[in-house]
Amino acid sequence: MTNKLSTQPYKGTRDFLPEEMSIRTQLFETLFQAVESFGFQRYDGPVLESAEIYEAKSGEEIANQQLYSLVDKGNRRLALRPEMTPSVARMIARSAGTLSFPARWYSHVNCHRYERPQRGRVREHWQLNVDMFGSESAEAEVEIFDLIHALLGAMGASDDQYVLRVNDRILVEAALTNHVGVPEEKRTDVGMIIDRWEKVNEAARAKAMAELGLDGAPFERLCELVNMDLDAYCQAAGPEAVERSRIVAIIREKQSQAPIQFDPMIMRAFNYYTSTVFEVFDTDPKNRRSIFGGGRYDDLASLFTKQKIPGIGFGMGDVTTWNFMESHGLLPKPDTGAQVYLFSTEAEGQAMVRQAARTFRQAGYRTSTAMGPTRMRNGLKQANRMGVIFAGIIGTSEIENNSLTIKNMKLGDQDIVDQETLLDHLKSFMIQPVKYR
Amino acid sequence: MTNKLSTQPYKGTRDFLPEEMSIRTQLFETLFQAVESFGFQRYDGPVLESAEIYEAKSGEEIANQQLYSLVDKGNRRLALRPEMTPSVARMIARSAGTLSFPARWYSHVNCHRYERPQRGRVREHWQLNVDMFGSESAEAEVEIFDLIHALLGAMGASDDQYVLRVNDRILVEAALTNHVGVPEEKRTDVGMIIDRWEKVNEAARAKAMAELGLDGAPFERLCELVNMDLDAYCQAAGPEAVERSRIVAIIREKQSQAPIQFDPMIMRAFNYYTSTVFEVFDTDPKNRRSIFGGGRYDDLASLFTKQKIPGIGFGMGDVTTWNFMESHGLLPKPDTGAQVYLFSTEAEGQAMVRQAARTFRQAGYRTSTAMGPTRMRNGLKQANRMGVIFAGIIGTSEIENNSLTIKNMKLGDQDIVDQETLLDHLKSFMIQPVKYR
Repeated sequence: MTNKLSTQPYKGTRDFLPEEMSIRTQLFETLFQAVESFGFQRYDGPVLESAEIYEAKSGEEIANQQLYSLVDKGNRRLALRPEMTPSVARMIARSAGTLSFPARWYSHVNCHRYERPQRGRVREHWQLNVDMFGSESAEAEVEIFDLIHALLGAMGASDDQYVLRVNDRILVEAALTNHVGVPEEKRTDVGMIIDRWEKVNEAARAKAMAELGLDGAPFERLCELVNMDLDAYCQAAGPEAVERSRIVAIIREKQSQAPIQFDPMIMRAFNYYTSTVFEVFDTDPKNRRSIFGGGRYDDLASLFTKQKIPGIGFGMGDVTTWNFMESHGLLPKPDTGAQVYLFSTEAEGQAMVRQAARTFRQAGYRTSTAMGPTRMRNGLKQANRMGVIFAGIIGTSEIENNSLTIKNMKLGDQDIVDQETLLDHLKSFMIQPVKYR
Repeated sequence: MTNKLSTQPYKGTRDFLPEEMSIRTQLFETLFQAVESFGFQRYDGPVLESAEIYEAKSGEEIANQQLYSLVDKGNRRLALRPEMTPSVARMIARSAGTLSFPARWYSHVNCHRYERPQRGRVREHWQLNVDMFGSESAEAEVEIFDLIHALLGAMGASDDQYVLRVNDRILVEAALTNHVGVPEEKRTDVGMIIDRWEKVNEAARAKAMAELGLDGAPFERLCELVNMDLDAYCQAAGPEAVERSRIVAIIREKQSQAPIQFDPMIMRAFNYYTSTVFEVFDTDPKNRRSIFGGGRYDDLASLFTKQKIPGIGFGMGDVTTWNFMESHGLLPKPDTGAQVYLFSTEAEGQAMVRQAARTFRQAGYRTSTAMGPTRMRNGLKQANRMGVIFAGIIGTSEIENNSLTIKNMKLGDQDIVDQETLLDHLKSFMIQPVKYR
């Protein structure tokens, strides 16, 4: 075969070689532990879902432009999930009869979106999804904010390295009506203008408002609104909305440990959010970007069931999280590969190599062996290249005595150990095997 | 909205609710540890790959009938990976310049095949993929067999509960030529007849051979061949093939700990295997089915590179593994959800509930809290339903004294603990938090 196929992964997707995978695994294991400490339970669902669940609720950009869709041989219209929330709403609706609410669920899934690859955006990314179902209480908001604080803390981030920007669509809708004078049928469109506020310039915002027939005074009042502090915004929204909003008391009474900031510009693009919305931002001036976000959705399960099941949650993607950690020097070091390398200089030593390897593994060491007789020099070179702690050598005298020479590759000293007592010997070592999991 | 969407997952795919997910997670974590103890390093790759890498090497059934394919908006022909081996061959070829061989890699990925769903077959399954690259030595075979033994052992399986059935395509090809008299151009077709030997009846085998013009004496000799023991088969294949085969010495000298059986009927359907092939079977007479399998492929990286990189490996799917473990009573118990449930009977106790929850989490307990003031009776009922170890109760007197009543839900006794000294108290508990990870 002369024409070789490309070794590159499909555009916008990534190979994770062992070093990168070790970082990703450690990162997510840390997150899993933090989420589980709050009593959240892991679930999983299929990559392929019926396309219509996204068309109904995910928002136009995702459904029309970003969806990877296909038709199977049975003529079913399918999509690769672009996000997890519709899937989990389906699963919650499916099992609502046997669940005890509130249900705290998390997952770790890959999602696909057709986007132009750029910094922070890929076509397949890995996401931690965290959702609580079945509670309308503001306590759910506090728990989710505290959990975000715990997650970022577990990653090593201090409270000044990020900010949790919070808003409430209940307040926004009331303020748009009462303060800006936006008619109900144009509120969604104005919401999208707010959502893109920081991504475009003044002229573009004005133009977008003008296209809705809301130039002049409404536009000026909108500009006021997106720069208001919480007290002014509550005035603009009016007492009924303030009463219904969960975030006002949380912020005023500092009920959560997270570094929370009220921010009228936070909207989130998904159609399904109905109240609290939030986004976590890096505070580094060089990297003021959204790391991840989420919100409350009262109505998503209604696609599938008559039962009303409110939810609140967020999805945390690996790319933006990785970038945040990298720019703050918080990424874990890759820790992968063998800690022990065993070889024999003789063909008849291979059985002893395998026997010694079993003992090292039993003692908890990640142990690799040579694939056949290996010269001393090459074996030690290989042990060095692999960065192992110990090299184990079986030469002619070790074969004769049923022993093993163990060389500490960090300190340089070595021991001859009887194979019969190897396990006891390993248990007495000062250097214990390190597990990265 | 009146027409509700279906809550069922797409046909042939599965939702994993927390209990099932806990079993799956524990199962694979056990496997990961066993694989890593052999020095294998985890990697990952994209779900979407260029369709052509499967068309070239995966075999006709997969490429023509089972592939989920799509065309992206840039007109690229893509497929959802039906298996991991072509992807990992691509990645190894891509990074061959910087790798140290032999490279020991493993992954845990979901694969998609369009199949009629039935016991043991689904359209999306999760797979542990284990491959060693860059060694032609029979030591690689021994290591892979020993690793399979370690994996099954880690799952709790004893050596009599499964058998590793091993064959070698080098021997098969020689035996087909020398003993059966199959011309070279018909060897692949006869190989497929052997592959399906146990799945069809005598008449179907005879018919398939007749279609190749090999009825009569060749068919009789083929029937002989697939029932030969190792010595007879080596005779049939001839000394040159026996010399090249790696498995003959491994079996005769019992070099591996695994329960190995030479089996002339093992072929494996993938086109890319070139020598050793193997399949692990359940020995339970009620469940004599293949759990998983693999083999040696000398040529797969050649799709991507001129460099010759031989490999040997296997893919272990979650469905057949789960069935095997279930039928032998080896499945781990679900261990998920909170170990501690905290509530206050009073609204003003919520802040203390959150504070106590932080302390329990710090001490390592998976801790859940009530979403607002909760009556004693309801709180204890909820704690019972959740199956927690401890319920923590904050009533009016606990609020007054800044304390917490901790009730042991298993033993029934309770303690009143000062919030200030809660952490020390928790550390002194006889019952330590159990981590399922």
